[in-house]
Amino acid sequence: MLTDIQIAQQAKMKYISEIAEEAGINSDELEMYGHYKAKVSLDLFDRLEKQENGKLILVTAINPTPAGEGKSTTTVGLGQALNQIGKKTAIALREPSLGPVFGVKGGAAGGGQAQVVPMEDINLHFTGDMHAITTANNLLSAAIDNHIHQGNTLDIDTRQIVWKRVMDMNDRALREVTVGLGPKGNGFTRQDSFMISVASEVMATLCLANSLADLKERLGNIVVAYTRKNQPVLAKELNIQGALALVLKDAMKPNLVQTLENTPAFIHGGPFANIAHGCNSIMATKMALKLGDYAVTEAGFGADLGAEKFLDIKCRYGGLKPDAVVIVGTIRALKMHGGVDKKSLEAENVDALKKGFVNLKKQVENIRKFGLPAVVAMNRFPTDTEEEIKALRALCEDLGVDVALSEVFTKGGEGGIELAEKVVGIVEKGEADYKPLYEVEKSIPEKVETIVKEIYGGDNVVFTGKAEKQIQKLEEIGLDKLPICMAKTQYSLTDDPTLLGAPEGFDITVREVNVSAGAGFIVCLTGDVMTMPGLPKVPSAERMDIDEEGTITGLF
Amino acid sequence: MLTDIQIAQQAKMKYISEIAEEAGINSDELEMYGHYKAKVSLDLFDRLEKQENGKLILVTAINPTPAGEGKSTTTVGLGQALNQIGKKTAIALREPSLGPVFGVKGGAAGGGQAQVVPMEDINLHFTGDMHAITTANNLLSAAIDNHIHQGNTLDIDTRQIVWKRVMDMNDRALREVTVGLGPKGNGFTRQDSFMISVASEVMATLCLANSLADLKERLGNIVVAYTRKNQPVLAKELNIQGALALVLKDAMKPNLVQTLENTPAFIHGGPFANIAHGCNSIMATKMALKLGDYAVTEAGFGADLGAEKFLDIKCRYGGLKPDAVVIVGTIRALKMHGGVDKKSLEAENVDALKKGFVNLKKQVENIRKFGLPAVVAMNRFPTDTEEEIKALRALCEDLGVDVALSEVFTKGGEGGIELAEKVVGIVEKGEADYKPLYEVEKSIPEKVETIVKEIYGGDNVVFTGKAEKQIQKLEEIGLDKLPICMAKTQYSLTDDPTLLGAPEGFDITVREVNVSAGAGFIVCLTGDVMTMPGLPKVPSAERMDIDEEGTITGLF
Repeated sequence: MLTDIQIAQQAKMKYISEIAEEAGINSDELEMYGHYKAKVSLDLFDRLEKQENGKLILVTAINPTPAGEGKSTTTVGLGQALNQIGKKTAIALREPSLGPVFGVKGGAAGGGQAQVVPMEDINLHFTGDMHAITTANNLLSAAIDNHIHQGNTLDIDTRQIVWKRVMDMNDRALREVTVGLGPKGNGFTRQDSFMISVASEVMATLCLANSLADLKERLGNIVVAYTRKNQPVLAKELNIQGALALVLKDAMKPNLVQTLENTPAFIHGGPFANIAHGCNSIMATKMALKLGDYAVTEAGFGADLGAEKFLDIKCRYGGLKPDAVVIVGTIRALKMHGGVDKKSLEAENVDALKKGFVNLKKQVENIRKFGLPAVVAMNRFPTDTEEEIKALRALCEDLGVDVALSEVFTKGGEGGIELAEKVVGIVEKGEADYKPLYEVEKSIPEKVETIVKEIYGGDNVVFTGKAEKQIQKLEEIGLDKLPICMAKTQYSLTDDPTLLGAPEGFDITVREVNVSAGAGFIVCLTGDVMTMPGLPKVPSAERMDIDEEGTITGLF
Repeated sequence: MLTDIQIAQQAKMKYISEIAEEAGINSDELEMYGHYKAKVSLDLFDRLEKQENGKLILVTAINPTPAGEGKSTTTVGLGQALNQIGKKTAIALREPSLGPVFGVKGGAAGGGQAQVVPMEDINLHFTGDMHAITTANNLLSAAIDNHIHQGNTLDIDTRQIVWKRVMDMNDRALREVTVGLGPKGNGFTRQDSFMISVASEVMATLCLANSLADLKERLGNIVVAYTRKNQPVLAKELNIQGALALVLKDAMKPNLVQTLENTPAFIHGGPFANIAHGCNSIMATKMALKLGDYAVTEAGFGADLGAEKFLDIKCRYGGLKPDAVVIVGTIRALKMHGGVDKKSLEAENVDALKKGFVNLKKQVENIRKFGLPAVVAMNRFPTDTEEEIKALRALCEDLGVDVALSEVFTKGGEGGIELAEKVVGIVEKGEADYKPLYEVEKSIPEKVETIVKEIYGGDNVVFTGKAEKQIQKLEEIGLDKLPICMAKTQYSLTDDPTLLGAPEGFDITVREVNVSAGAGFIVCLTGDVMTMPGLPKVPSAERMDIDEEGTITGLF
């Protein structure tokens, strides 16, 4: 069997100018980055202002397990399948971070016959967005330390600088640092941290902005520090928002690539799915909507975390109204939710499947709370038995949800025709009536409680003393009327990653509450959040090579 | 009068595909970055292997003064002028660093009617080379700290890690830092420093590499640390050279842009001119040589520092043989070398001019020591008087050197015709017989002494105790047989920036001697070297803006 990289390297790519032309992008709206990548100008929105949007399909998943679900693969494969059944479709995905590429493995988008290409470029510098975000983030850091060094007229409390430096690298040595050591000319000494670039609020802000002007305004609203009188200091008080927007002028433009079947795919923006909302940019999703009958996009992590943030944060800011939600799972993964351990997944076990189905059921019910219809996509594995498939179909029927088996990994778009047809069927019924889960005008505790009770199925929210103080501070400075961005384990509906299925009778503990006033949300941390990964014992970088002919090895 | 940026924004640029075609670059060798920038594949060298190279012209200058000389402007203007007189010419220049753009001013290439465009892109992210270099540098840092964290089988002494992290930013707070603070999982605590990215040895290495394979080998030879037994630890011992080369695969390709008069210009690589050699890449210079009758390039700082390193380091590694050297000066600057202060430069002062001429004379004599003919280019200022010009011409005649007045700043190529004709005249005489100043096989003290006595006109070299120990170490580990990269003030032939003209009877003190074994030179520091600038009281970033229509202000 061919590996993902072998399949990708054998892809028959079209020139991106051809993909763009077929998609309806004018040549003067296209900025080429070589033959197979391009940025698309935001001017496209003016030209197509009157054109009706296509249908928006969100792909999400059950709580992920080590068994693997295949959400990105399904997103790509569904896009390919929709095209195969005659629906003009564009895909919108997150762009990968360079840092982890050197660590454990490449960050390929999709897999098997459902991939986005050119993989090597997408996983290295791509079109430079990550670097622009890194630069903007660190320019803001330099401006803060320079302001203090030059006299600190804003009275910034050096113990309360919340803005951190970033690097697009897995580098644990930078998690906790001291900066400004040495003589007077090196500024004031203080503690600082580096995060990986995708964790930067600049990334989340770029992804939630509706235009360059909106981006600039949001960047100006970033809270970078507090004064010694505990008042927030905003980026715009450093007169830096214009330079930040300038640094990001090209990064704001969605990147166009293609799938293995030449479906247009926008890969743009990739904020962390814990301390941020984990979705590709609003710009990319809107562009996909303008160009296709259908736009297929995905959200990070499982539906309780990723889809909730997609629906409560991204859709709210982007004015997006999804038409259907695909929930991805596998029979193997449902068996794990039903208590089977990873080693015993190959054996038929209808009882475990039935038991684990509660996780999928809860996710379907959750999606319905947003006024949206769901379709279940089960990625087929060779070990799935007929009895198991029969049982699954029966369970879905009881739940009143459409289910399709998907084989896009091995067959590409052709393997997703059943899924595509079910998606089209449900969209054409026109049942979708999207509404967010809560009103932003409610208090922080009320909003969090709604998410915990309605989506996670928990009993109560416990705020630690620290979190309570932080909420009080945000209320005092008037920054509490924003959507909530939950930072919770993706593996469970609870805040305990070992509790699978659909637990009941649990509380969620919120340990920390921070504002991302530029991005426009309040982050509630429910556990340890790692914002700077480290390299493993043998980093994948050690296997990477390129020879004189340009042949790349070890990247995946 | 129009500002540089106004002139640049009014430029009638051709599509870069057209510039490339006219220059003889095949379309499959061209990778577009938008309409006006492209990278050129190194495959071009294979195709044009049999084609004879053009003539190589180096542009250098007297020791720079606050009066301004205009070296880059002359380089661009000479390229334009050579084209005007029918010589097919290509230019090769360094690419600017993004960091300083946010500090004092933009890093425009050239000025007035002799500029390279598109200026805004060149000064922002350009084609991402700086970011790739930053990534490679910091991947190596992460690999070092990870190696120590994972068991340190190479026995790296954490007090003797010489490899530093970099960022393309003016950020004084990062000059001296402590990394690896916090719990055990964050690695070992140690002191570290950040440099600005252009100071990275990765940059110097990329600029001195002759192919991707050569680059990889050189990167592997970088000395990153010493063991507790004082043995050097090389990057290749961390198995990281393949990944570093992979990260740099596109950065190795020269970037093609154009001048205001549509002359092809390669802007590629920009190593520091103090701790590195300060010249654009060998690849870019070689490409310019392959495509033109003439290739015009420049070296950083004045001729004593920049041209010497161009001729002793870059030419040696690149197998380059220059045909003529242009030495740029102004009458104003020579008057400063003759003792006039900046405020009194407007008044006619033939005596001061004659006195300050010694600096130019010494630079001309130095160039002749490399077997090369020189041409003097005097950039004309409105305040230059007829008497001053007459005196200058007489002095040059006595010295036996051709001199041309240049008005490329106000008139573009047309203002450089006299210079272009003199350059062609001297090249066609075929007098050039390039040879480096010293043999690399000599000892470090012998090589430094040769430079100090022959080029600077000094009496002796004094090595501090620290420098002597470092030399001894390099001799022991067999890394002393490399060219010398002097890090000295650019403002004087001595190591004291206040001594203008051509001082005599002085010593040069070498305070530190370090090896850049990947780049392939030994750095001798003669004073404080700043490798991480800071932002000023009011950074230029505060004036920068971009509006919704994409109009940029404050970048220059």
